[in-house]
Amino acid sequence: MKAATLVGREPWSGPFAALSQPLVPTKTTLLSGTDPAAKRAELRRYFHQTCELYDRLFGLIRDDASYYDRHEPLRHPLIFYFGHPAVFYVNKLIAGRLIPSRIDPRLESMLAVGVDEMSWDDLDAAHYDWPSVRAVREYRAEMRQLVDDFIGSMPLELPIRQDAPAWLILMGIEHERIHLETSSVIIRQMPLAELRHGDELTAEERRLWRTCPDRGVPPANEWLTVPPTAVRLGKPPSDETYGWDNEYGSEEVSLPAFKAARQLVSNAEFLEFVSDGGYRDDSLWTEEGRGWLHYTRAGHPRFWVRCDGGYRQRNLLDEVPLPLDWPVEVNCLEAQAYCAWLARRTGEHVGLPTEAHWQALRGSVAGDQPTWTTAPGNINLEHFASSCPVTAFRHGDFCDVIGNVWQWTRTPIMPLKGFEVHPLYDDFSVPTFDGRHNLIKGGSWISTGNEALASARYAFRRHFFQHAGFRTVIEEPGSVAETMGSRLYETDQLVTQYLEFHYFDAACGGGRPADPLGVPNFPRACVEAVMPRVAGDRRGRCLDIGCSVGRSAFEFARHFAHVDAIDFSARFIQAGVRLQAGDEVHYEIPTEGELTVSRAISLERLGLAAVGERVSFLQGDACNLKAMFGDYDLVFAGNLIDRLYDPGLFLSGIAGRIRPGGLLAITSPYTWLEEYTPKTKWLGGRREGGEPVSTFAGLTRALAGGFALVDRGEIPFVIRETARKFQHSLAELTIWQKT
Amino acid sequence: MKAATLVGREPWSGPFAALSQPLVPTKTTLLSGTDPAAKRAELRRYFHQTCELYDRLFGLIRDDASYYDRHEPLRHPLIFYFGHPAVFYVNKLIAGRLIPSRIDPRLESMLAVGVDEMSWDDLDAAHYDWPSVRAVREYRAEMRQLVDDFIGSMPLELPIRQDAPAWLILMGIEHERIHLETSSVIIRQMPLAELRHGDELTAEERRLWRTCPDRGVPPANEWLTVPPTAVRLGKPPSDETYGWDNEYGSEEVSLPAFKAARQLVSNAEFLEFVSDGGYRDDSLWTEEGRGWLHYTRAGHPRFWVRCDGGYRQRNLLDEVPLPLDWPVEVNCLEAQAYCAWLARRTGEHVGLPTEAHWQALRGSVAGDQPTWTTAPGNINLEHFASSCPVTAFRHGDFCDVIGNVWQWTRTPIMPLKGFEVHPLYDDFSVPTFDGRHNLIKGGSWISTGNEALASARYAFRRHFFQHAGFRTVIEEPGSVAETMGSRLYETDQLVTQYLEFHYFDAACGGGRPADPLGVPNFPRACVEAVMPRVAGDRRGRCLDIGCSVGRSAFEFARHFAHVDAIDFSARFIQAGVRLQAGDEVHYEIPTEGELTVSRAISLERLGLAAVGERVSFLQGDACNLKAMFGDYDLVFAGNLIDRLYDPGLFLSGIAGRIRPGGLLAITSPYTWLEEYTPKTKWLGGRREGGEPVSTFAGLTRALAGGFALVDRGEIPFVIRETARKFQHSLAELTIWQKT
Repeated sequence: MKAATLVGREPWSGPFAALSQPLVPTKTTLLSGTDPAAKRAELRRYFHQTCELYDRLFGLIRDDASYYDRHEPLRHPLIFYFGHPAVFYVNKLIAGRLIPSRIDPRLESMLAVGVDEMSWDDLDAAHYDWPSVRAVREYRAEMRQLVDDFIGSMPLELPIRQDAPAWLILMGIEHERIHLETSSVIIRQMPLAELRHGDELTAEERRLWRTCPDRGVPPANEWLTVPPTAVRLGKPPSDETYGWDNEYGSEEVSLPAFKAARQLVSNAEFLEFVSDGGYRDDSLWTEEGRGWLHYTRAGHPRFWVRCDGGYRQRNLLDEVPLPLDWPVEVNCLEAQAYCAWLARRTGEHVGLPTEAHWQALRGSVAGDQPTWTTAPGNINLEHFASSCPVTAFRHGDFCDVIGNVWQWTRTPIMPLKGFEVHPLYDDFSVPTFDGRHNLIKGGSWISTGNEALASARYAFRRHFFQHAGFRTVIEEPGSVAETMGSRLYETDQLVTQYLEFHYFDAACGGGRPADPLGVPNFPRACVEAVMPRVAGDRRGRCLDIGCSVGRSAFEFARHFAHVDAIDFSARFIQAGVRLQAGDEVHYEIPTEGELTVSRAISLERLGLAAVGERVSFLQGDACNLKAMFGDYDLVFAGNLIDRLYDPGLFLSGIAGRIRPGGLLAITSPYTWLEEYTPKTKWLGGRREGGEPVSTFAGLTRALAGGFALVDRGEIPFVIRETARKFQHSLAELTIWQKT
Repeated sequence: MKAATLVGREPWSGPFAALSQPLVPTKTTLLSGTDPAAKRAELRRYFHQTCELYDRLFGLIRDDASYYDRHEPLRHPLIFYFGHPAVFYVNKLIAGRLIPSRIDPRLESMLAVGVDEMSWDDLDAAHYDWPSVRAVREYRAEMRQLVDDFIGSMPLELPIRQDAPAWLILMGIEHERIHLETSSVIIRQMPLAELRHGDELTAEERRLWRTCPDRGVPPANEWLTVPPTAVRLGKPPSDETYGWDNEYGSEEVSLPAFKAARQLVSNAEFLEFVSDGGYRDDSLWTEEGRGWLHYTRAGHPRFWVRCDGGYRQRNLLDEVPLPLDWPVEVNCLEAQAYCAWLARRTGEHVGLPTEAHWQALRGSVAGDQPTWTTAPGNINLEHFASSCPVTAFRHGDFCDVIGNVWQWTRTPIMPLKGFEVHPLYDDFSVPTFDGRHNLIKGGSWISTGNEALASARYAFRRHFFQHAGFRTVIEEPGSVAETMGSRLYETDQLVTQYLEFHYFDAACGGGRPADPLGVPNFPRACVEAVMPRVAGDRRGRCLDIGCSVGRSAFEFARHFAHVDAIDFSARFIQAGVRLQAGDEVHYEIPTEGELTVSRAISLERLGLAAVGERVSFLQGDACNLKAMFGDYDLVFAGNLIDRLYDPGLFLSGIAGRIRPGGLLAITSPYTWLEEYTPKTKWLGGRREGGEPVSTFAGLTRALAGGFALVDRGEIPFVIRETARKFQHSLAELTIWQKT
């Protein structure tokens, strides 16, 4: 019998079989401890259990040929996932220079990078010359021996720190546990006939992969009020469990009262949406949702199977009549459409919860994976290998705050304050900070290890399927519980370039040369050049016009009682406002080719946190300022005039905004471009009546009558393009006193 | 009577009337002399004669309304030309800071810039609010008083030098004499009825504007052989006459023997071309010619008038039956089409002469304007105010080497070796160095002052009309008499940027800061960093691959017996070859906005003239080098690898070209761009198997086995964009020894 043959080939009778038992339940290994030898043994066990469990999942596949089918068109075939966690261990140990040589460079390259995050409109049609299943099995066995040896001999200090060899082992293990879950999602999309199931399973397998037997009709759902509360997001550095880089940091969110549904949305509830034509009503879907809907032509949730005019549900290893009281499993776009439908029906502001909303509910679950004896929810493979009724696990007034299925939030993943990229896995989180990956919270029946922790923060593109459903919430109109994190990661390339230009000297991670060309910070240099000209009794009001991301405004705030900071670009001002609010702003800058380095900046590092509040950021047009802006002791126009559509208009208008005796300071590299300023409006750098007119001459002419020149100098500035390429300009500074 | 009223308004009864007589003939004032007072008086007379003559020409216009018609659609109306030479004097005196204030800033701006050089496809549709004719007359009178006062009081030393106030006066006068001629061309396009003519003219006017009475049938034209000769182009700085900047310099051209037609092409000869369908046969016209032809739908020369199935010719103030023995007047495109037609007919290589060809013929005219008592040709307004028969003036074996009509050459105007822009009229010549302005030589009946000198070098767009015709020449096939000048002015923007990058330290005009950022010359710095690693006995053969415009190749030639310098771009190599030939290369670089500064560079200034001949410039592909390139002691790849389509292929191929123990030196800022190199071919700056790989690591891997790293360092370089904006990069230098 074929299945028997397959079982015979499975490695779970191998050299580490004893070490691996029991396979479930497991807990993620604590970083702390007092006995390194015991910790080493614990790590070995956790490692082998993980590998073994992974093999068990893939052992469900009846025939090797199925490894090469693409059951989920947006993902690699299973052969990739079978080998991927194994090569990950080796690749990280090589990257960390912890082992001298590779096992199989070809496999370690081919199986290194997944395409988990593909969109339906960038399908990867590349041809892959996949290895045989046998080769991957052999690789996995070799890897297990190599890592086992490594664990046995690596230096080990407690607690395990992020730069320790043991951290990489945990990274490999937790990475494999992620893929245990995501692979189970793909296997759930395979034809049942290609899987060993039912009687073909061993007793142990039947126990491990048990579908919940309970199904019925759910009790009516209802919304319960959650009082105003402050929640804290983020895992402290001192936490005793392994965490991914994006989970660390700290943020306080003050939540107004909101209502949350007691239960996750059930198949029964979602069936109403389907029956009501929800999949055919474009007006319920976001633009992104419509794109997905039109591409897939979906008419019901992915794991529902149409049958005899009704539906059945596909689980991992069986198909059952639609369990009406189990949670519906959908992607985020479907969840959003359901909320829109329900909002229309009820007249309430129904939506998905934010990350903070979920965290507020999480208060009703006692403890966390390290402390529980039995999981208080359908999680950690402790109860079922499927969903179960939405009322099976209560947490306080709510059900399924953790476990059963993941819960979509409406929060795109962004780093928390204090975020730092882990240097040996710097593309784990950062590529998902793009506003297109939403956080899922709470874990599913197969979430183990780190995934089952309260601090877990995983995110997927909104059209992706996991074992994931959702809970609805209702908020007061206008009371939008924004997650801080979403403001902290700057992805706008131009804003990023200017943040680096203005704040490179505040970038964290010490030891980096501030500016490789040795040019001092420009906004600061400008302020230092201007202030000696400002009398001690003329330091009341300052206008920084064209303030960009705000550095010079903050620097002037060291000296002036009040600084108005105005820019035409709201994007730029927003960055200044974030810094002013005390936020740490994160961004990436290019180093070489596609490689980047991450930056984190804050006013605190510059000693500007205290004076920051003297700055008022405002959007405005330098050539058409509102009447309210006036009475200034100093107007600073930094690198502005050659970017205005009518610099002459600006100059003629600004005089009236300055107190008699006040100053106008202008810096510019005089880079006139018709793209910004029609040539007829250039102050200089052009011919008039056939004769060349310099910008300085044009400025002098424009300001004649109202101003006297009091200083003229040059200040260099540098805009970084890569680690080795810079725009280096010499701005002219002129200071004019109003006569 | 209307005309009488008009005459009554003419200024030639004004305060300077006596000083202005006689109006013709004049000679341009010599710069030399011994008596400043006499020279001052001479300048005053020359100035007033010029103004007076100009007024006489415009005095031919019957009614002020005609000043505002656009008789020539590619030019401003005559009101502009009436005022333009007057405001020019004032604008130049202001620019030279020689007078304290303007007469009329509005007029001095509006009438400052002409549109003489418009093409038919960039017609200027701007609306101009032209001044009244009376206002311009009054302005001219005020200007005459102002300049007269200035001449009377200005410092004056002899000889008059280019930076003297008197030079600006001469510039204004010679400028007005140019416009005397170009305005006469426009007036020739006005309806006769709008001009005072015939009996309406005074006796003096009838003398001044006399049409030649002779016309008949010309004798057959024939080609005469001119033996090989060396001609010298360019006016020496010591010349005693005023010159425009482009006329100065010095070039020797060795002309092989050629044949030149005895006579200018006559109306009779050109009529055959017209009758033969020359204007309807696209195959005779250049691409540019076809564009013009299709735009204008011309069917015959512009000054011919179709009448009763035949042609008449419009002269300045009359229309006569087509004078068959007068020279035809055409633009350069028509002249080229005629040559093509005649070549097809005769089977000879008929073409237009070059500047040098004309200069060779000029040897048969004795003396020049300063020395003649009567003009030896129909020039200087000494004989007629029209053309005359092509055989009326003989010069040796030829007719009309000077005078009658200008003669188109096939030479686009370019500066001569030694060219320097005149700082107070820096847009006189430079904008015409664009390959689209061809030189005309010899002068016409109305060419006076500087225009009548042998050294005069005027150029117009090829579609423009002047009083201009042409002479045909025949050259031996393959013997193309190239004018040096055409090679000396670099207009390719990218080449210009790289010339500045490589040779800024050789730029003439001393006192300019070499590099405002203080960064040393990069190619030279590279050579100086590499040479200490090259053993004294390994200095035979060097390859500079990706040599660009050649500086590092020349610098290596100081140390190596032979340097092969290869680049993919023939444009770049050409610049190196020109410098190697000892040429001075001229170019403009941007400073601010549209303003530029000119550069002149040569190897001589760098002490590289002697070693230059050790360099062989060759076009080639670094990734696919011909087998002949090998056996090198050093291969230098400066800023090359990140611009190759397959840098790995280059590296794997280059090893075989280097002698054992020889060196490979590579510099690069590692600026990888998919535009040049597909990402899969990047040596580094990308992720492989999920892990970041630096370019240095990639280089090391690519060269492993064949090379050992012997040095690694950083060399900065700067590419200038404006006077205040630079691309500043840090190249990494790595030196590898072949093992």
